[in-house]
Amino acid sequence: MTTMTMKMAREEPAVSHTSRYALPTEPKDNGTRSNLCSGPLILLSHGDPTGFKPFWRSVGDKCKVTIDSCDFMSYLTDVGKVCWFLEKELEEAIRQLHRTVGNAATDDRYIVVGAGSTQLFQAALYALTSPGGPESVNVVSAVPYYSSYPEETNFLRSALYKWAGDAYTFDKEGPYLELVTMPNNPDGQVRGPVVNRNDGKLIHDLAYYWPQYTPITAQADYDIMLFTFSKSTGHAGSRIGWAVVKDKDVAIKMTKYIELNSIGVSRESQHRAAKILCAVSDSSQCTGANFFQYGKSLMAERWTKFREVISRSRLFSLPKYMEEYCQFSGEDSEPHPAFAWLKCNNDIEDLEIFLRRYKIMGRGGSLFGSDPTLVRVSMLGDEETFNLFLERVSSIQDTIGNGNGNGNYI
Amino acid sequence: MTTMTMKMAREEPAVSHTSRYALPTEPKDNGTRSNLCSGPLILLSHGDPTGFKPFWRSVGDKCKVTIDSCDFMSYLTDVGKVCWFLEKELEEAIRQLHRTVGNAATDDRYIVVGAGSTQLFQAALYALTSPGGPESVNVVSAVPYYSSYPEETNFLRSALYKWAGDAYTFDKEGPYLELVTMPNNPDGQVRGPVVNRNDGKLIHDLAYYWPQYTPITAQADYDIMLFTFSKSTGHAGSRIGWAVVKDKDVAIKMTKYIELNSIGVSRESQHRAAKILCAVSDSSQCTGANFFQYGKSLMAERWTKFREVISRSRLFSLPKYMEEYCQFSGEDSEPHPAFAWLKCNNDIEDLEIFLRRYKIMGRGGSLFGSDPTLVRVSMLGDEETFNLFLERVSSIQDTIGNGNGNGNYI
Repeated sequence: MTTMTMKMAREEPAVSHTSRYALPTEPKDNGTRSNLCSGPLILLSHGDPTGFKPFWRSVGDKCKVTIDSCDFMSYLTDVGKVCWFLEKELEEAIRQLHRTVGNAATDDRYIVVGAGSTQLFQAALYALTSPGGPESVNVVSAVPYYSSYPEETNFLRSALYKWAGDAYTFDKEGPYLELVTMPNNPDGQVRGPVVNRNDGKLIHDLAYYWPQYTPITAQADYDIMLFTFSKSTGHAGSRIGWAVVKDKDVAIKMTKYIELNSIGVSRESQHRAAKILCAVSDSSQCTGANFFQYGKSLMAERWTKFREVISRSRLFSLPKYMEEYCQFSGEDSEPHPAFAWLKCNNDIEDLEIFLRRYKIMGRGGSLFGSDPTLVRVSMLGDEETFNLFLERVSSIQDTIGNGNGNGNYI
Repeated sequence: MTTMTMKMAREEPAVSHTSRYALPTEPKDNGTRSNLCSGPLILLSHGDPTGFKPFWRSVGDKCKVTIDSCDFMSYLTDVGKVCWFLEKELEEAIRQLHRTVGNAATDDRYIVVGAGSTQLFQAALYALTSPGGPESVNVVSAVPYYSSYPEETNFLRSALYKWAGDAYTFDKEGPYLELVTMPNNPDGQVRGPVVNRNDGKLIHDLAYYWPQYTPITAQADYDIMLFTFSKSTGHAGSRIGWAVVKDKDVAIKMTKYIELNSIGVSRESQHRAAKILCAVSDSSQCTGANFFQYGKSLMAERWTKFREVISRSRLFSLPKYMEEYCQFSGEDSEPHPAFAWLKCNNDIEDLEIFLRRYKIMGRGGSLFGSDPTLVRVSMLGDEETFNLFLERVSSIQDTIGNGNGNGNYI
C-alpha cells in the first residue's frame, strides 16, 4: 500500500478530507504566529454568491414557490426524453434564458440537468471516456485552472480518466480531454483551448459567462457547455446546473451517469429554478427589475472599490481587463469577475497563509496550478463581509507598506 | 481497447446506457413475437412510489412548503458541523422519526444527507476504501442482491473498489465490503451479513426498514445505515437520503465525497423532507392521519389481492413470509415488501421477456444475480397501474394454464 500511495502522490493530487467549505478551528500556520487582527475570520475561499441576496429579497412574493405534499413524488418527469428526470418547465426556462442573453446556442441541442455543474462535469468526463480502454484518458486545463478540477477528476481513481495538469505543458500522446473555463476561474480571463490536437475533446465550463461578470461578446456554441444556477442567479443552495450538449449519445451517457450517481436531480429545486430563470428572462413580468443590471452594477461597484483600495499601495496587484462590446447590454464594458486573483508584490512566500493571519481566508494559488504568491478571493459574498475585507486589506497595506508592483497587472 | 473491453466483460457487469427508467420503444425480443395484449405498457421495473400519493393528497395544506426567492442561496448550512450542508431542521426530523419508529439508533451517531441513498452508497464505498492501496477492495452482496449495486460500484472503473458478486460464493482473500439490504430488495427477506470475516466492513441498506413494508423487530444499530425519503414516505422526486454513521472519520469522508461529487444536496428538498418527516413522526399534529398505518394497509391489501390472483393457478409463485411482532405497531404482522419477487413455474426461460409480450415491464432475475425465471415487479405504483397488472396476470394464467408450482414458495 505504501508504494501505491507514494506513486499516487507523484501523479495525482492528494484529496484532503478537510472540507474546503468548513471553517478551520486553527490557523493554517498552526498557531506559531498569532492573528494580527481582531474580529471574525472572513470566508472568501469559495464563491458563495450571497451578494445577490438583496436583489432576490426585493423581488418579494413574485418568485415564491409553493409545493404541496403530494407534488414531485415520482422519480420520472418524461420517460420518452433523453434526460428523463428533467422538468419540462426548467428546460423551457433554460432555453428562453439563453435566447434572451445570447450567451449560448441551444437550438437542436440537448439539455441535461445535474446537481450543480460539478456533477455535470463528472458526467461529461464519464460520457467522453466510457467504457474506456487500457489507458485512462488524460484530463488537462490551462494554468491557472479551477482548483477543484484535479480532485474531482482523481478522487475515485477511475481507470477511465486521470488528471494530467496544465494544458500548456501537456505533451503526452493519445486522446485527451481539455477543460476550458470561459471566462476563467480564478483569473477572469477569456481564453480558448490550448492543446488543439485532433484527438482531444473539449468540455466548456461557462459558469461565469453571464452579463454581470463579463461582456457577452458572442453566442457560445461548443460541444458540451456547462452552466450553473449558483453563479447565473446566485442560488447555490439549490444545486442545479445544466449542460447544453450537441451530440445525442453524449447526452444519453451524461444522463446515465446521473441515473447511476443519484437517480435524477431534485424536482423541487428544478421547479424553483424554472420559476427564477423565467423571471430573469422576462424581468418586467416577474421581478420588477433587471437582475443582470443589478448584478453588473454590484460587481462593478465592488471592483471599483477594491481597485481603489489596492491602488493606495504597491503591496498587492490585480489583473487588468479590456473593455469589450457586450451584445446583451448593447454597450462597451469591462469584465467584473466573480473572483479577484490577488497577487502580492512583497517577499511573502505564501499569500494564503499571510492573509489568514489577518483573518482573511482566500484560496492559495498552488491549488490552481499557479504560484503561492497569488490568492483567489471571492467578490460574491454579502456586503458586510466585503466591506470588512476592504478594511482589512487597507489595514494590511498601512501596516506592511509597499511592495514592488504597480497595483495592477495583466 | 478490444482486449480491455473483453477483460472487463468477464469481471465487471457492462453498463448499458439505455436508461432503466426510460420506456423502451421496441419490445426486448425485437418484435419477433408480437404483443399479446392491448393497452399501454405498464412500468413495474422500478420502485416508483406513487402508490402513496393519495395519502399525501389527503393531507392538504398541512405539509405544504413555501420558498421565497431569497431563501437557501448559500451553499452552507453550518460550517462548524461534519456535514456542513445538512439542514438542521432535517437532522432533527430524521432523529425524531427514528426515535418514533424505533427502527434505528441515532444517539451519538452522525447524520450525512445525500441525493438519495444511491449517492450515499457511493459515498460509503469511497469512505471505506480511500485513499486505497495497490488492490481494489472487493464489494459483495448475497444473491439476490439489488440490481443497481454492480453498475453503481463499477461504472467509473475505480481502483478503490470493484464489484465481486455474490457474498455466498465469495472466497477471495483481503479486505472486502459487504452490502446488507434489510429487508432485502428484491425478495423482501430479512437477512444479515454472510461472509463474516474480520477484514470485512458492512454497509447496511435499510431503505425498506419501515413499518409499511416489514415488522420493526429491533432497533438497528450498525456502523453505516442508509435510508431514503423515496421509500420511507414515497417522495422519490426529491432525491433525499440519509446515512446514520457511527464513526466520525467515516462521516467526514462521506461528506467529502458529496462535496466533491455535487457540493452539497438541494436545500429546498431538505427543507421539504424535514417538514414531511416531522409530519410523519407526529401525525396528529400535521397530517390528521397516520402515514405508516395507511402505508401498511395499502401494502397489505395489494399483497392479499395479488396472492389471491396468483393462487388461482400454479403458473406463478411468490415468496412466503413469517409473521413477526412489530414493536412499532404493537402487533404481529407479516411483511408486505415493496417488490414482488415473482417466479414462473412453467418452462418459460426468461420471465422478463415473457411478461413484456403482455406489456408488463418487470426487472429480470439475472440482474439480481439470480435466475431469469424470476422477475421483480413493483408493488408501489399507482392504483390504476396495479389493478391493470392484476388483470393482465389473471389473463396470462387463463391463457397459459398451470405450471408446476403451488402458488407460494419460500
